[in-house]
Amino acid sequence: MKHALNTTRAADFSAWYQEVITAADLAEESGVRGCMVIRPWGYGIWERIQKLLDARIKAAGVENCYFPLFIPLSYFEKEASHVDGFAKEMAVVTHHRLIADGKGGLVPDPAAKLEEPLIVRPTSETMIGAAMARWVQSWRDLPLMVNQWANVVRWEMRTRMFLRTSEFLWQEGHTAHATRDDAMAETLRALEMYRATAEENCAIPVVVGEKPENERFPGAVATYSIEAMMQDGKALQAATSHYLGTGFAESSGIKYQDKDGGQQFAHTTSWGMTTRMIGAMIMVHGDDDGLRVPPQIAPHQIIIVPMLRDDDGDTALLDYCKSLAAQLRGEHAFGEPLRVLVDTKALKAQAKRWNWVKKGAPLILEIGGRDVAGGNVSMIRRDRLYTAEGKLNGNIQTRDAFVTGAGAALESIQVNLFAEARHRMDSNIRRDIADFAALETYFTTSDLPGWVEVEWARPSGDALDAVVERIKSLKLTMRNVPNGAAPATGTCIFTDEPAVERILIGRAY
Amino acid sequence: MKHALNTTRAADFSAWYQEVITAADLAEESGVRGCMVIRPWGYGIWERIQKLLDARIKAAGVENCYFPLFIPLSYFEKEASHVDGFAKEMAVVTHHRLIADGKGGLVPDPAAKLEEPLIVRPTSETMIGAAMARWVQSWRDLPLMVNQWANVVRWEMRTRMFLRTSEFLWQEGHTAHATRDDAMAETLRALEMYRATAEENCAIPVVVGEKPENERFPGAVATYSIEAMMQDGKALQAATSHYLGTGFAESSGIKYQDKDGGQQFAHTTSWGMTTRMIGAMIMVHGDDDGLRVPPQIAPHQIIIVPMLRDDDGDTALLDYCKSLAAQLRGEHAFGEPLRVLVDTKALKAQAKRWNWVKKGAPLILEIGGRDVAGGNVSMIRRDRLYTAEGKLNGNIQTRDAFVTGAGAALESIQVNLFAEARHRMDSNIRRDIADFAALETYFTTSDLPGWVEVEWARPSGDALDAVVERIKSLKLTMRNVPNGAAPATGTCIFTDEPAVERILIGRAY
Repeated sequence: MKHALNTTRAADFSAWYQEVITAADLAEESGVRGCMVIRPWGYGIWERIQKLLDARIKAAGVENCYFPLFIPLSYFEKEASHVDGFAKEMAVVTHHRLIADGKGGLVPDPAAKLEEPLIVRPTSETMIGAAMARWVQSWRDLPLMVNQWANVVRWEMRTRMFLRTSEFLWQEGHTAHATRDDAMAETLRALEMYRATAEENCAIPVVVGEKPENERFPGAVATYSIEAMMQDGKALQAATSHYLGTGFAESSGIKYQDKDGGQQFAHTTSWGMTTRMIGAMIMVHGDDDGLRVPPQIAPHQIIIVPMLRDDDGDTALLDYCKSLAAQLRGEHAFGEPLRVLVDTKALKAQAKRWNWVKKGAPLILEIGGRDVAGGNVSMIRRDRLYTAEGKLNGNIQTRDAFVTGAGAALESIQVNLFAEARHRMDSNIRRDIADFAALETYFTTSDLPGWVEVEWARPSGDALDAVVERIKSLKLTMRNVPNGAAPATGTCIFTDEPAVERILIGRAY
Repeated sequence: MKHALNTTRAADFSAWYQEVITAADLAEESGVRGCMVIRPWGYGIWERIQKLLDARIKAAGVENCYFPLFIPLSYFEKEASHVDGFAKEMAVVTHHRLIADGKGGLVPDPAAKLEEPLIVRPTSETMIGAAMARWVQSWRDLPLMVNQWANVVRWEMRTRMFLRTSEFLWQEGHTAHATRDDAMAETLRALEMYRATAEENCAIPVVVGEKPENERFPGAVATYSIEAMMQDGKALQAATSHYLGTGFAESSGIKYQDKDGGQQFAHTTSWGMTTRMIGAMIMVHGDDDGLRVPPQIAPHQIIIVPMLRDDDGDTALLDYCKSLAAQLRGEHAFGEPLRVLVDTKALKAQAKRWNWVKKGAPLILEIGGRDVAGGNVSMIRRDRLYTAEGKLNGNIQTRDAFVTGAGAALESIQVNLFAEARHRMDSNIRRDIADFAALETYFTTSDLPGWVEVEWARPSGDALDAVVERIKSLKLTMRNVPNGAAPATGTCIFTDEPAVERILIGRAY
């Protein structure tokens, strides 16, 4: 069967991923090392994720604000002082002016060298910590809960669009609380918010759980993640939430006077989700015809392509399409008005149809003179593109029936995409592997290995490092200890000690 | 009469401005030179402006996307090659790693020096131009209309919060069109969009017009602006829109094949509005008690302060406040549900009331046991804070009457703030000044000079430079040639030649 893309997932997953990004007009190389241009369809998806996640953030009483792009180098020195061989890949600003070099070129002006270099924020942890130290004085000021939507930069040598770029977009939540319990509750609230955003909005099923000690955010007491399974069986960490104890408050000076007049350090949390989520969405929902965008995060949910013929009938056809769009915009799905686009670009209807298939618009209508005459619409659903015989699964409905059912159709596509991904993830987690040899066999002999959930003794320190090294030789990492996993009843597959819990292991992006 | 702020506008406008920013919790110094922290109330106002402006941008068919933070230095060299003594205040990234200096400090790693320095974008003109050159091939690709919400950096030695900071937030629209007429129509559409955002959303009256030649954006064929009058009589350019002709397309290579197969350069536009708008809002609507936020852009429009007494009555009081808030959220103003906050912070009610007065929330309710018993609300309107006798203008209404009338009350506040500002602007534009001596007298003898609209001959080149120098000695600049100004009938106040139009002159931020 012929597909819209040149590369199939089966043939070369990595090349397929790049082709989807190009074919769906999501993003492209910018000419600046490690930085991409996010094109309107890709950015529109990010805007949808932002809107839905932002509503969850605000509903929790967290307030948005904005902190500087630049962080003075000295803010990093404290961290460096207790890290041996500190080296950090960060963009360093050293000058504040360009001047002509006299040869037609430009150079940083030596007279405009900064006394202290500035770092382009890799995260705003230290800046926000300093602000919190100013804002928190008394127990009355707690909880203090802020969030920022921003660009951050972490210099990367090997980049991959959406998954690993030097500049990326994200939100970072930072909160301070009076007690451990309050901070832990917020850590888990943020984690649940990410689960809901991934599963309910992006239709991406995830395993929610705690990261093992070696995967904790530096300085965190506990790090939690949501892990999504890509179609190649690899794991992608789609968001994290950290309980930082009082350590971060101690280094930043976030202190408060308690009700008895004593001085206490606050308990802090931080949590973030990035444009990486778009990479996850591609690798979870894409197929050999391109992207499939879940209706909740599709910038346009319904595309209407008028089959224009450059003749007298075009006016009536366009009127029909526009009034259909207006009618659909009065309908709702997921509690919001439908997002409908009439594609009037000067291209052949068939080319437009395939463009929207590759972009993954959930419902694509092609309207011709016959539809206008009959009061019908011709429609394809992106989640059911082909019939069992491999033909394009077009479908003619009366206009009224389509309009009335459009919201429900979108909701059904959302459900289908999630169910398909959920089924794939569930059927690719092995929970029956009881010793290391079996684990090794699974990952070295499977065509498309997924994840394994194994019992372990939760070793710490050197013993944990040994485990990490051992699975690294199989290109594996520990993902998380799933919430709600069955209790451990046997022995640790690494140490043969009595197991205490079950941990998820897999290859990862 | 005593006011909530220590400094009045009359005593020291500049100190008053800073005090409003602090007292209203809008922003603060970050510790990073020229960069501010935008606090939740300030950022919430920006989010409202964003939301309303973004809807106008999208309604025009402009698509949002995202371009890199960094621009290679070479992109600026073309510009430099035809600018004598080119020197630009820009943040220059020269290294991509920090390493320990062996003395407990950190330094940029000499081994990680970039081959080509990167500039933190002062605008994305060149990056977007390069992308447009890739995206535009045929007349079918036009118009191409994109917009970006982003942070940009222009190094500033003397900064002032919201008005002039090294980093600021903005949107930049960039469009390419087949013809001059199309591009000019888009330039004026964007300008009208800014007028509507300023006047209808921010309640800031503006003069819309074309900038004189010397104030054009470099490379623009025509630059238009909206100019707002601050309470000290100074002008603030609140947004600009540029028609760039084909010059920018020529230097960026934005070419298209027309319907006859010929190659043509596109006509381009660009237009932007920044967080400066918040500075304008403060200086237009603030009073000696703090900020007054127009209801359309207030993050919370109605604040409910429960007068808690730490006794048994608190539960009933809180229930009353929360159910009142829920009821109000079912009401609408400006076509949106009301934004209502119950302030349960552990502070005295009176302190909370004054905090919200200083922040400028449009409606502030204080609810006590007596209000609960009587089914009433006690309310102040921020735009009518005092009675004629100088007492706080509190107002008791039945709960039902307040709920029913809340939307209308907010709409009335919006109208009042605009009318007040409009009246002030209109009464401070002198249109009767017919010679330079009168202009000089006006600006040197008025206590609080506003603007003058004078007739001029629209000199160009050296003759224009002479005019610019002449008014510079009075600290004046030309603002714009107002759309819809009366026709010129006399002589130019600068050159005594026959005048061709009327131009607005004033002091400016």
